[in-house]
Amino acid sequence: MGPAPIITLTTDFGLADHYVGVTKGVIASIYPEARTVDISHEVRPYCVAEGAFRIAQAYRYFPAATVHLVVIDPGVGGSRRPIAALAGGHYFVGPDNGVFSQVFEKETPLVRQVDVARYGLQPLSRTFHGRDLFAPTAAWLAKGGLFEEIGKLISDPQTLPATSPVEVEPGHWQGRVLNIDRFGNLVTSFEAARFGILSGFRLSVGQLDVRRLAGSYAESPGEEPFLIEGSSGYLEVSINQQSAAQRAGALIGQLAELWVGAEANKA
Amino acid sequence: MGPAPIITLTTDFGLADHYVGVTKGVIASIYPEARTVDISHEVRPYCVAEGAFRIAQAYRYFPAATVHLVVIDPGVGGSRRPIAALAGGHYFVGPDNGVFSQVFEKETPLVRQVDVARYGLQPLSRTFHGRDLFAPTAAWLAKGGLFEEIGKLISDPQTLPATSPVEVEPGHWQGRVLNIDRFGNLVTSFEAARFGILSGFRLSVGQLDVRRLAGSYAESPGEEPFLIEGSSGYLEVSINQQSAAQRAGALIGQLAELWVGAEANKA
Amino acid sequence: MGPAPIITLTTDFGLADHYVGVTKGVIASIYPEARTVDISHEVRPYCVAEGAFRIAQAYRYFPAATVHLVVIDPGVGGSRRPIAALAGGHYFVGPDNGVFSQVFEKETPLVRQVDVARYGLQPLSRTFHGRDLFAPTAAWLAKGGLFEEIGKLISDPQTLPATSPVEVEPGHWQGRVLNIDRFGNLVTSFEAARFGILSGFRLSVGQLDVRRLAGSYAESPGEEPFLIEGSSGYLEVSINQQSAAQRAGALIGQLAELWVGAEANKA
Repeated sequence: MGPAPIITLTTDFGLADHYVGVTKGVIASIYPEARTVDISHEVRPYCVAEGAFRIAQAYRYFPAATVHLVVIDPGVGGSRRPIAALAGGHYFVGPDNGVFSQVFEKETPLVRQVDVARYGLQPLSRTFHGRDLFAPTAAWLAKGGLFEEIGKLISDPQTLPATSPVEVEPGHWQGRVLNIDRFGNLVTSFEAARFGILSGFRLSVGQLDVRRLAGSYAESPGEEPFLIEGSSGYLEVSINQQSAAQRAGALIGQLAELWVGAEANKA
Repeated sequence: MGPAPIITLTTDFGLADHYVGVTKGVIASIYPEARTVDISHEVRPYCVAEGAFRIAQAYRYFPAATVHLVVIDPGVGGSRRPIAALAGGHYFVGPDNGVFSQVFEKETPLVRQVDVARYGLQPLSRTFHGRDLFAPTAAWLAKGGLFEEIGKLISDPQTLPATSPVEVEPGHWQGRVLNIDRFGNLVTSFEAARFGILSGFRLSVGQLDVRRLAGSYAESPGEEPFLIEGSSGYLEVSINQQSAAQRAGALIGQLAELWVGAEANKA
Repeated sequence: MGPAPIITLTTDFGLADHYVGVTKGVIASIYPEARTVDISHEVRPYCVAEGAFRIAQAYRYFPAATVHLVVIDPGVGGSRRPIAALAGGHYFVGPDNGVFSQVFEKETPLVRQVDVARYGLQPLSRTFHGRDLFAPTAAWLAKGGLFEEIGKLISDPQTLPATSPVEVEPGHWQGRVLNIDRFGNLVTSFEAARFGILSGFRLSVGQLDVRRLAGSYAESPGEEPFLIEGSSGYLEVSINQQSAAQRAGALIGQLAELWVGAEANKA
């Protein structure tokens, strides 16, 4: 028998409070052999779009059958459904608020609504389902529980606005801001490999209009914004030693537009 | 044979330095199978009362026989005793400075003074007993060492001022500030379930006098402080989008007073 | 068979992003039994000297055959070599930029250049070798892979300026700033035990000239800088309630000079 499956955790709980520890305690109480790995607990509070980006970037580096627990849950205690999904050979557990959108864009999922009466702790709090419902469900799946028993299949999981670029007119694409990193770089949803051969382009996001491409940060001193291929494979908008996000006035999830080819010069 | 018991860690070491890693290294050197779970390493430096709150909130979510290592230790190198306790089926290891007060309010403990000559590393530093004494003791207990051999029983562990509310006059209760969270909400020691049916109340903490109850933050815009049931089950003092702690001028451990029933209107 | 060897992680990735989680995912994919322990992920971005200090302080508290993965890698994608070393019974994996200097000052190492074609993921990014090269190499060593197969031996690993004090004239020593902690204390490379009996001394670092020794912070109120023995066994420069680093204008890696004995009064 191999080692126990891994349960990853992605939350906006922060690391100062005892919430992450308690969540792991609940997991260990149900499945003592469980092994947990933190993806991030510093997702901006309530920022479902950032959580969607983090888990979509991370899950595929883990072994098959890993259980990914994602709790960015501003709607806790309300009517949002708790879900578990099987997608790309991995399990996902969390609120049905679009936090798995970017995973589901890549992998066709099977989605079930978690049976609260069966998997929730008693009493179930109104404010902390990470502890009372999602942790027990994840522990149960890691322990070998059958996905089929989680609850009824649903076909309409919530989605965030699509991030994968759409060509709205020939040469004119719309994407999204996927992430803003600690330096204020704007990670867009335009994959560098797909839009890589840029003989002229224009990218517009918030207040910024970008027409310059750089191979490295050092290449582009000065105040002009530029486009660069980031470590996740996406095109990023940067300004040397400044926050491009602040200059753009842009937020995660915001529209980004790209014109390529002949359109780049027209626009 | 089941998996190794868990050792939880609650400290004020922070995460930038190598101290947490070193503590886990010492544990692994003594008991290679040990499994550790972080509760928090961001307890305010030297704040024994915050540590007391964190571990009391977290321990009961872990399996029986978990070893809880708690090192908020401003008196390290001085005369404070090192202790290990058995309470509610869990083990606790740390300094005898009241950091286990809130656990011992809930569970009758057996407390032993750790035999430093037997369990301490040699040489024993004057400044880092988390590494040199508490980690080895916790590892030894997790490994199956007998609690009876830890050291002599003591009957007078240090305690912080009691946090469980006391009725000083009919309808007039005294409690404490258990925690101040990142938003400045004041967590009091008044359990919502016990003081839940509030037909008129008055709560006083520092400079604030609160007479309003809210079911959610959204219900209470404006600058008036209000009382709300928090995720730990305690009544919390909040102000919408402001720090109630700052407005109250209150610190963790501070007195909070509650008047209920007829007393609420008199006071 | 005992438990799997530990892999420790020391990086400047920070904890907000998903990079640490992804690194652990790669490790788990190659070696599912692997157990990881974080030393720190809050090393100042690109600060090789701080990384060198952290790992040198931490490694010896772990069991023999632990694999220490250290990724502070400003030269990623350039010509710096990837290395794995065997030193003091521990393995070390990371970039050849001096980050293991302080370990190699203490332990004679065998150093090999990692065979990228054999151990690197395909495709290999130009910006994230922690994930694509160092994590796989560390996982392979923890799994029991032979150190001899890692790559060719090299005899000229990069080193930072030596930190161990050198006596440049009788009674006149030169050392380095090893670390600056969160309070602005300057940790020097002068071991307290070696320079402990100070009947008169003078220490100079940046703008500060220190001639006073203190046994505790409380002993030294006021604005005057003083020397104190820190928890790592080194002499530290402190100012009560102020940042000595800021007053000195000093950085990690900077020269510190010590005069002892008759020289202290002359200088």
